[in-house]
Amino acid sequence: MIHIVVVSHADLSEALIRAAEMITGPIEGLHAVTLEPGESPESFGARLDAVLQPIADEETLILIDLFGGTPYNVSVRQVLKDNVECVTGANLPMLLELIMTRDEASLSELAAEITELGQASVKNLGPLLNR
Amino acid sequence: MIHIVVVSHADLSEALIRAAEMITGPIEGLHAVTLEPGESPESFGARLDAVLQPIADEETLILIDLFGGTPYNVSVRQVLKDNVECVTGANLPMLLELIMTRDEASLSELAAEITELGQASVKNLGPLLNR
Repeated sequence: MIHIVVVSHADLSEALIRAAEMITGPIEGLHAVTLEPGESPESFGARLDAVLQPIADEETLILIDLFGGTPYNVSVRQVLKDNVECVTGANLPMLLELIMTRDEASLSELAAEITELGQASVKNLGPLLNR
Repeated sequence: MIHIVVVSHADLSEALIRAAEMITGPIEGLHAVTLEPGESPESFGARLDAVLQPIADEETLILIDLFGGTPYNVSVRQVLKDNVECVTGANLPMLLELIMTRDEASLSELAAEITELGQASVKNLGPLLNR
């Protein structure tokens, strides 16, 4: 099973998981790390390590809220590992797709697929609905 | 001022605002409507109306968590109004961009811009960093 770690400012990562599980029911292998207001990168990094260490031998996809900022800066170095991929711009469609397809593709394929799906999930409804 | 209404499953909409305000500080004209577990579309719709009614004469951008599902189904009819735009796939970069640029463009331009920015904010870091 590929683990999914969502990292974010405030409790956005936890709320993404709550929203996804409201649709899918409880899911194994989902983890959230939240940057608290005023928290240092070192403290956030220690809490990310505490999540990653027990699953260090397994494949992990880190979903990051935002390109830039502490959650990104601390997480991005993980992408140097062979068994970790990182994707930014976390939204609910990406997390749902990850949950539903993580056993059907390799880790690098999964990262590419949810990137494409995440981009396609952003739709401007006015023009789309020919208003 | 263009109002921003974030609608979502669970408290994802509130958490997006908490994460954005952790970066920007408190912001006026941000609203969240959350679909609670087991809540009916009618109940959600009534709560969305309660947010939209007092700002009915102003311009509003509705940021929707996901294309499909109750928050989408209930919100999308608002796009028929001239002074409302709807964009799906809500993520933190989109909300930050909305907050920072909402006074610099027309409502329809803003919807187009954050759609483009939202799509570009989803990045697969492995290939991007030439790992």
